[in-house]
Amino acid sequence: MSEAKPDTPNYPEQFAGIRSRIEDRLAEIAPAVTGSAPRLKQSIRYSLLDGGKRLRPLITVLTAEALGGKAADAVDAACAIEMVHTASLMIDDLPSMDNASQRRGKPANHIAHGEDIAILGGITLISDAFGLIGRDPHLPADVKVDLVDALSTAIGTEGLCAGQERDLREINDRADAEALAQLQYQKTGALFVLCVEAGARIAGLERDSLAPLRAFGTHAGLAFQILDDLLDAVGESSVTGKDTGADLGKQTYAAIMSLDEAEAKADQELTDALAALEPAGINQEPFAAFLNLVLQAYQGQVDPGHARQAGAVV
Amino acid sequence: MSEAKPDTPNYPEQFAGIRSRIEDRLAEIAPAVTGSAPRLKQSIRYSLLDGGKRLRPLITVLTAEALGGKAADAVDAACAIEMVHTASLMIDDLPSMDNASQRRGKPANHIAHGEDIAILGGITLISDAFGLIGRDPHLPADVKVDLVDALSTAIGTEGLCAGQERDLREINDRADAEALAQLQYQKTGALFVLCVEAGARIAGLERDSLAPLRAFGTHAGLAFQILDDLLDAVGESSVTGKDTGADLGKQTYAAIMSLDEAEAKADQELTDALAALEPAGINQEPFAAFLNLVLQAYQGQVDPGHARQAGAVV
Repeated sequence: MSEAKPDTPNYPEQFAGIRSRIEDRLAEIAPAVTGSAPRLKQSIRYSLLDGGKRLRPLITVLTAEALGGKAADAVDAACAIEMVHTASLMIDDLPSMDNASQRRGKPANHIAHGEDIAILGGITLISDAFGLIGRDPHLPADVKVDLVDALSTAIGTEGLCAGQERDLREINDRADAEALAQLQYQKTGALFVLCVEAGARIAGLERDSLAPLRAFGTHAGLAFQILDDLLDAVGESSVTGKDTGADLGKQTYAAIMSLDEAEAKADQELTDALAALEPAGINQEPFAAFLNLVLQAYQGQVDPGHARQAGAVV
Repeated sequence: MSEAKPDTPNYPEQFAGIRSRIEDRLAEIAPAVTGSAPRLKQSIRYSLLDGGKRLRPLITVLTAEALGGKAADAVDAACAIEMVHTASLMIDDLPSMDNASQRRGKPANHIAHGEDIAILGGITLISDAFGLIGRDPHLPADVKVDLVDALSTAIGTEGLCAGQERDLREINDRADAEALAQLQYQKTGALFVLCVEAGARIAGLERDSLAPLRAFGTHAGLAFQILDDLLDAVGESSVTGKDTGADLGKQTYAAIMSLDEAEAKADQELTDALAALEPAGINQEPFAAFLNLVLQAYQGQVDPGHARQAGAVV
């Protein structure tokens, strides 16, 4: 929308700094492989410390900073969300679910560590995420309690687990755009919304002023999921690091519209995400920079033979 | 150790009242099968509302009341613990773990609802348990944060999940009594300890005064687990409602000592549990009544051909 101005903060540098803090903290949080249950601890380290894009913790810390909070206060909550995201990948990949063989360029957790350990590892990561919030020394108890509430909602019968049931069991049941948007909200949007909601609460915003940020998270999450669906349809496994074509027959945007239409919808969602911040007077720039990063990650992974040159959002 | 006195509170009546509150609240908490993800919601209802003994929520509420707290304040935390316990049974029964066919007298959750849904149901129950604590309107935020912390610890790499890894993967590795006590603490004791710890915090005790109650929980949990092992070895499936003989080759007390020795050890643990309360000046009676209930449940299920008449602890 606008060219980068000379006085624009250096977002790539800020993002790199946040990512580095997140990686450092995750390395501290990951259980050392000592004492009992070494397989469980190894399985957790295997998936948690594997160089994911860290988009969710990044937007969490970025939101806190953009709204006047401190990165240090947001890092543990951001890591908790990444732990839940990591667990969701371990669980989704299981033989009884997507039966995926690889993830992030290496064997899926259950292939490397066994199905039993992968399940226990996913559960431990989710439980540890709540514990990390409960023990967070940076946040007041009332904010922690809100985050526990919101994280639980993002996981359960209206969140990730519901989305995963529908993804597995509603195959082609009713693949219209509206039902799909709801499914994708549960699968991806709910956690993106949680990220900005958590960042905002940590920065001191009250619960009743979060609607614009929730709208941003919903649109951004949907854009991300559309691009992820497209990667599954047209990406190369060697680049995406996971099985592609795994969504065939599933409810995805790649299934109900052309690739061009899906990319146009992703673009629209990115635009809507930023627009949602406007009424609240929130500076769009850091959020726009984040969305550009999401888009660039997609453009870097898509098979160039299929790629359309989607326009940058800033 | 002493006969019931005429002025003794009517514990069976108190227990029945607590159980009834717990059942009512669990029925409210269990997700209604409307909207999206009906299979997930049905799977949760199937295992959560199936007439378990509710020993964990019972001792949670009982502890709160025994220490001067109100039952109403403890009911949600008690239900959260029961939700985690229920999830642990669903997960333990999975094909990749104990591969159990029945539980509480009906098909195991994954047989009735599918393996994918049983896994998602277990995860949702654990996540919902944290959410229930986070939203509990009866408790101050600092107590809720402590409960979240303690619940997470009871589940993760030093709790239930660690115990389950060891149960699955350390078969006969080092079945000596000390290693076994540590394993059983992770599998069962940690959650029993959490129950009394939660009840005490809800009643207003500070974190640094919980040691005697933790000791009670550790001994009581171990006694319970020994009796449960014995039931697996000598019980009748038609009475216990789950597969028996499933522990063959595993590290259990039934495997490393004679049945008489194991029952004697359970008796000793029950005695030690009560003795742990003495230095703190805590009235032992309600706790003794609870332990009697545990013992009676065992005696009611054991095959009479193998049963030894274990002495009641009060």
